[in-house]
Amino acid sequence: MTSRSRGFSAERELVRKLWKMGLAAMRGPASGAKVKKSVYPDVVAIKDRYIFVFEVKARKHLDNIYIPKSQIDKLIEFARRAGGEPLIAVKIHDLKVWKVIPASSLIPVSEKRYKISREMLESAYKITHYINDNLNKTLISYIKVADFKQV
Amino acid sequence: MTSRSRGFSAERELVRKLWKMGLAAMRGPASGAKVKKSVYPDVVAIKDRYIFVFEVKARKHLDNIYIPKSQIDKLIEFARRAGGEPLIAVKIHDLKVWKVIPASSLIPVSEKRYKISREMLESAYKITHYINDNLNKTLISYIKVADFKQV
Repeated sequence: MTSRSRGFSAERELVRKLWKMGLAAMRGPASGAKVKKSVYPDVVAIKDRYIFVFEVKARKHLDNIYIPKSQIDKLIEFARRAGGEPLIAVKIHDLKVWKVIPASSLIPVSEKRYKISREMLESAYKITHYINDNLNKTLISYIKVADFKQV
Repeated sequence: MTSRSRGFSAERELVRKLWKMGLAAMRGPASGAKVKKSVYPDVVAIKDRYIFVFEVKARKHLDNIYIPKSQIDKLIEFARRAGGEPLIAVKIHDLKVWKVIPASSLIPVSEKRYKISREMLESAYKITHYINDNLNKTLISYIKVADFKQV
């Protein structure tokens, strides 16, 4: 498997996982001659108007990950327009786990690159945990508004 | 140009148009051996948590359009999960215009097909008009909530 096809395979796995969790999830178009992939996020997932925007990475082991700043800028711009959260989803094959890092936690290491350190990745939320947590928080805020209106 | 590549070209044009209007817009992945295109909408566009989910059609002339029910079912399920609006976007080349039809307005003509009549298409909103209208309505409802809170 090339790194490119491994990337696509991870994106498809993530979409299936999110769909099973009840979200509407979609991959972006594959890159090719006529498509500037970089303008799109890898995956967008939505539940009841709560929007998650993902850059997807797949790695064999737990290790530092470096990401071009241009990729992150596009991710953040898409999320800003949508009113969603820009996130990096990382599949670590050895650990059979998906981790998630908010784009705001990335460490700039040069003018052109961001870093996710091995330690950050190790202590990051599992993606299912992170998403359920955020969807529940939103639900609780709705309930509070409803309570308030009754008073 | 084959009908398939004409379809992709229309999707790309729609995404560019929506992006210029300030929305975050993304095409779904192209169909292929490993991808069941039908599970995804053709285009998703979002502005400040207001979500439009599109099936895209391109036609040379203004005419009746028939759409398989299975395509519409998938579109509606995606929109239901997302909390968005399921829409059919139609590019009519001769008129150089994009029209939009809510999935709820489609006419069932058999157990397996829906229809957009020529007349419906002719009187349908232009897509820019429809989207700006809906985004403004949302803005107005926010303002009303804000007014209410001040009282």
